[in-house]
Amino acid sequence: MQTVDLLLTNGIVVTMNPNGDVYDSGAVAITGDSITAVGPAHEIIAQYSAAQTVDLDSRVIMPGLVNAHTHVPMTLLRGLADDLRLDVWLLGYMMPVEREFVSPDFCRLGALLGCAEMIRSGVTAFADMYYFEEDVAKATAEAGMRALCSQTILKFPSPDAGSYEDSLAYTRDFIQRWKDHPLVVPAPAPHAPYTCTPDILQACSALAAEFDVPLHIHLSETALEAADSRKQHGMPVIPWVKKQNLFDAKVLAAHCVHVDDGEIRTLHNAKAGVAHNPTSNLKLASGVAPVVKMLEAGLNVGIGTDGPASNNDLDMFEETRLAAILAKGVSGDPTVLPARTALEMATRLGAAALHIGKITGSLEPGKRADIAVVDLARIHNTPKFARDPNAIYSQLVYAAHSHDVTDVMCNGKWLMRNRSLLTINETDIALAAADYAKRIDAFLIKRERSILSKLVAIGGVTQEESFEVQIKAPIADPQTVLDGLKSEELTIIRKAHYHEYDTYFVFRDDVDQIRYREDEFIDDKGTVSKARYRLTLIGESQEQEFANSVFLYRSRYIASATQSLRFYREYFQPAEEREIEKDRRRWLVVYHGVEFFVNLDRLTKPDTPDYFIEIKSRTWSKRDAADKAKLMVDLLALFGAKPDQSIPERYVQIAAG
Amino acid sequence: MQTVDLLLTNGIVVTMNPNGDVYDSGAVAITGDSITAVGPAHEIIAQYSAAQTVDLDSRVIMPGLVNAHTHVPMTLLRGLADDLRLDVWLLGYMMPVEREFVSPDFCRLGALLGCAEMIRSGVTAFADMYYFEEDVAKATAEAGMRALCSQTILKFPSPDAGSYEDSLAYTRDFIQRWKDHPLVVPAPAPHAPYTCTPDILQACSALAAEFDVPLHIHLSETALEAADSRKQHGMPVIPWVKKQNLFDAKVLAAHCVHVDDGEIRTLHNAKAGVAHNPTSNLKLASGVAPVVKMLEAGLNVGIGTDGPASNNDLDMFEETRLAAILAKGVSGDPTVLPARTALEMATRLGAAALHIGKITGSLEPGKRADIAVVDLARIHNTPKFARDPNAIYSQLVYAAHSHDVTDVMCNGKWLMRNRSLLTINETDIALAAADYAKRIDAFLIKRERSILSKLVAIGGVTQEESFEVQIKAPIADPQTVLDGLKSEELTIIRKAHYHEYDTYFVFRDDVDQIRYREDEFIDDKGTVSKARYRLTLIGESQEQEFANSVFLYRSRYIASATQSLRFYREYFQPAEEREIEKDRRRWLVVYHGVEFFVNLDRLTKPDTPDYFIEIKSRTWSKRDAADKAKLMVDLLALFGAKPDQSIPERYVQIAAG
Repeated sequence: MQTVDLLLTNGIVVTMNPNGDVYDSGAVAITGDSITAVGPAHEIIAQYSAAQTVDLDSRVIMPGLVNAHTHVPMTLLRGLADDLRLDVWLLGYMMPVEREFVSPDFCRLGALLGCAEMIRSGVTAFADMYYFEEDVAKATAEAGMRALCSQTILKFPSPDAGSYEDSLAYTRDFIQRWKDHPLVVPAPAPHAPYTCTPDILQACSALAAEFDVPLHIHLSETALEAADSRKQHGMPVIPWVKKQNLFDAKVLAAHCVHVDDGEIRTLHNAKAGVAHNPTSNLKLASGVAPVVKMLEAGLNVGIGTDGPASNNDLDMFEETRLAAILAKGVSGDPTVLPARTALEMATRLGAAALHIGKITGSLEPGKRADIAVVDLARIHNTPKFARDPNAIYSQLVYAAHSHDVTDVMCNGKWLMRNRSLLTINETDIALAAADYAKRIDAFLIKRERSILSKLVAIGGVTQEESFEVQIKAPIADPQTVLDGLKSEELTIIRKAHYHEYDTYFVFRDDVDQIRYREDEFIDDKGTVSKARYRLTLIGESQEQEFANSVFLYRSRYIASATQSLRFYREYFQPAEEREIEKDRRRWLVVYHGVEFFVNLDRLTKPDTPDYFIEIKSRTWSKRDAADKAKLMVDLLALFGAKPDQSIPERYVQIAAG
Repeated sequence: MQTVDLLLTNGIVVTMNPNGDVYDSGAVAITGDSITAVGPAHEIIAQYSAAQTVDLDSRVIMPGLVNAHTHVPMTLLRGLADDLRLDVWLLGYMMPVEREFVSPDFCRLGALLGCAEMIRSGVTAFADMYYFEEDVAKATAEAGMRALCSQTILKFPSPDAGSYEDSLAYTRDFIQRWKDHPLVVPAPAPHAPYTCTPDILQACSALAAEFDVPLHIHLSETALEAADSRKQHGMPVIPWVKKQNLFDAKVLAAHCVHVDDGEIRTLHNAKAGVAHNPTSNLKLASGVAPVVKMLEAGLNVGIGTDGPASNNDLDMFEETRLAAILAKGVSGDPTVLPARTALEMATRLGAAALHIGKITGSLEPGKRADIAVVDLARIHNTPKFARDPNAIYSQLVYAAHSHDVTDVMCNGKWLMRNRSLLTINETDIALAAADYAKRIDAFLIKRERSILSKLVAIGGVTQEESFEVQIKAPIADPQTVLDGLKSEELTIIRKAHYHEYDTYFVFRDDVDQIRYREDEFIDDKGTVSKARYRLTLIGESQEQEFANSVFLYRSRYIASATQSLRFYREYFQPAEEREIEKDRRRWLVVYHGVEFFVNLDRLTKPDTPDYFIEIKSRTWSKRDAADKAKLMVDLLALFGAKPDQSIPERYVQIAAG
């Protein structure tokens, strides 16, 4: 009679071993952090005596689930912004909030919050990718969970590093300190091919290989990423990263939504693991990964929730069920990805994808005691059929809920008993999380109130602290302007000709306006030679009016419009839009020693008096502005317009009628 | 100060009214079965005094969810058979089990079980379609839930009716008895266009119109159904049923997966409601309904779980979440079907789809008090952001679980308080359900053991109680057979020529075998004139051996093979398959006054001695068999084969080597 520390008896033991052994009634013998034996209850009881025996009352004893891809500190951002375009969500909300709030404390708290939720839903291991990953690792170890903790490395500055060299050095230190930890496997995470340089990919791969730790990366998540790779590198994503020696490391590739048969073979040859994230891929409209093909090719495909900001939870029961039904729906074949396979992905295959398959993912002697206990006797899982040996997988995948998990053990240590968490104080964490939420709400509410802050939040804004004086008047015949430009009183420095397409976003408070402008430059032959896209915050009211409707305006904020009009529309959510189109001929002239811009505009939309003249000049003081105002009235007369016809409205006001 | 019966206060009241009003903190005033007032807590408290006030501790107070399509008694068949082809699942498991077990008791119990689960997950109203619907109605009323109870009518005999006229009469009685019930709305449910005749559709529509009750039907669920309609009727499903006057009634159309823009317009003009069943449509691989288009067209689209045999639960939280993310995934646009719209579908729009929108689906004065209370303070829904007015919908749709529902009220009566059911005894129901499961398991296990029972279960089998004597021998030169047939000792009655393609399903117990045979008839020009598909149970062992390997065989069971080889393969799940192909020339001859079949076979697969002769005769007694055995040995000699070369093996044994 062999002695062990603990016997779990009288359960339905669903081993998830490759043979698919199920013991009902079964038992598991545990010594220290590991499983000593698994089998029919009467055999195990006859063979082992234990210091402690736990009767599990016909509940399911199964391996703890493996969440193969997440960003666990983002649990703190759950529900912050939803139902948005990917770029608006990411550039407009996630990144600005991360820049402002992500800190070691944020990561620790977010990780603990996520761990609490994952333990409650039967997860014992997860693959994380975030910033300040050492703080995630500490929180994970504190919670008693197993994790691949991967430190994000990017070509941009990130919340935890000013440059990628800093990140890489941090990651090396992190790996060195944690590589022998019983629960945490440290790893580098070059974020994605399109957010890393070839250098970064190569350095990360070399680092992972040097310490024999996995490498975690997002690969081929969106159709755009796949198309861009073909365009920029002349090849799909997988061969391109292979060329950067990525597969010198043991890779965990998240997503792989847009991979072809050849790429699947390459991943398989490289012994890469894949994390399938069906909810996130649907919710962000990235597509559906070819999971069945990948499994057929022999790849270790696990299932992940992705970050709770795009899910919005860490529920592996939901995720596993969705993986099973989605594969059927998209293939048109209800027999693919049966419940047993789905549960293998959520356990043994997931562990293998994380390259920790030797120690977890199934209930087998020698593996760590990572265990979830599930109560299948609740009303939503009644009745229970026994004829089909696959019925138990059906019950677990199609009808069980995360809340049916009653007990969880990781590394031989109980993390939850009868739905009480033993390693995490949920009340404290929830309070601290609520405090973060309040601060983040306040930050965003303040930003939303100020269109300028929203503009600044997405980056690239140049703040021009200048003043501008301006006069504008309708003009009967454009020839009088062209004649005026021939006057000896002025010198033309340069000229330009363009079509301008303006969209004004008007907001409810009617103070700030955003102008999205497309300038098409017209060359001498009358064809479009180039285009420019700019975003301008027109927040100023008139600062001062001089004689004859010459106005002094405050400065504007201008950003190069690197996103589409549609992006900005969704991001700024204007109450109204106004469109203006005009043909503009512009001259920079010197008149009485002062530079002025002269615009001869023909409005084509809306339909208004045909021609306008605008004279503008930058200024740095009100005194200078007053001087220039006088000169501008003279100039206007020179161009054949009458100062008493000058109008105070800007074009957007004219457009509003 | 007005007096009401009950005040629910201090909750986040999510009204789901068309205006999207949310009151935090809010209150609901209830009198009898109805809502008197909804609004900010301080206003309601100032205006109303109540016999009882319930403080809901900042939980969400929302309308009870509406499950827009289900077959609730099938809750008893949850998890019975999964991951199968639709036809195998339906013809092989659901229908045989339903034929055997569905009774008033089954329907009552299944409905109570389903109601218990639905109340636990915040559902207060559902649309059912099943047999013995009056028993479903009684159970629903007992549970205190609201339901559209629709009696199935089919062109085939069903568990509750021998003919459709019986069903129709039953339905008329049912409607007459229940049409004024406060909770149950009775309705006819012609099952689907392809399972009903035009007569049935017309009669059901007329019946529904006569009593002004809705009509519930499955429409355009699969691509096959849509394609068949175009083929058979020259038009898609919706216009065809319109032609049968279906839309004279208030229709609730389940599925509508394969409908085009014109059909959507027709549904909208007909004021039909639609039930979207995303899990079922994925799990059975039917496709994804064009929900966004239907909503844009102004259709009332609700969300349903479909029956728990194809889901496998009745969880409207899962379903609503899936509806929201699936629409994004298939459209490639993450902004479509935002959380608020998804929740509208699960409440107000669902009620409108069931044609009970005037009395339920939102918290509005005058509507019935159908209410779910949801606790959003649990760890998987932490933290909580308040900036975005849509955040509350995000929390409810993307992160909340059915288990977060704490209290449920229907028609002003509590059905659950603090997660304790008040109208249903779950323990009793679970025990009775377990008993059914045991009996169904036993029925199927017995059937699975006997290949004959499995064959009989799918119908169409002819049992031939005959005996057959047979002799077989290899033959060197087929000409000797052709010469023998010219003998004056025999008369040829008829002859035939075909290619036979046989697939034998061999089972582990090695007793029964199933032969799937395709016969291609070859005409005089050597071309294939027609084909025949037969399924034969070859369960017999040799009954007796006469001299020279003449064998007497027991009878066979033969069925016309109306399904494909792939169907039978999946249904019978053979341990092994063996294939035989041969060219067969067959003559029916009379020899010494006795009829014999003469087969001249050339085996083309497997590769064996080229030609065989088989002589067979039906017999009805062992005595007759012995007489014929002697004649057969003589005949064999006449055809140039030697009796001592006769072989005992059947072709499938030769094929096995």
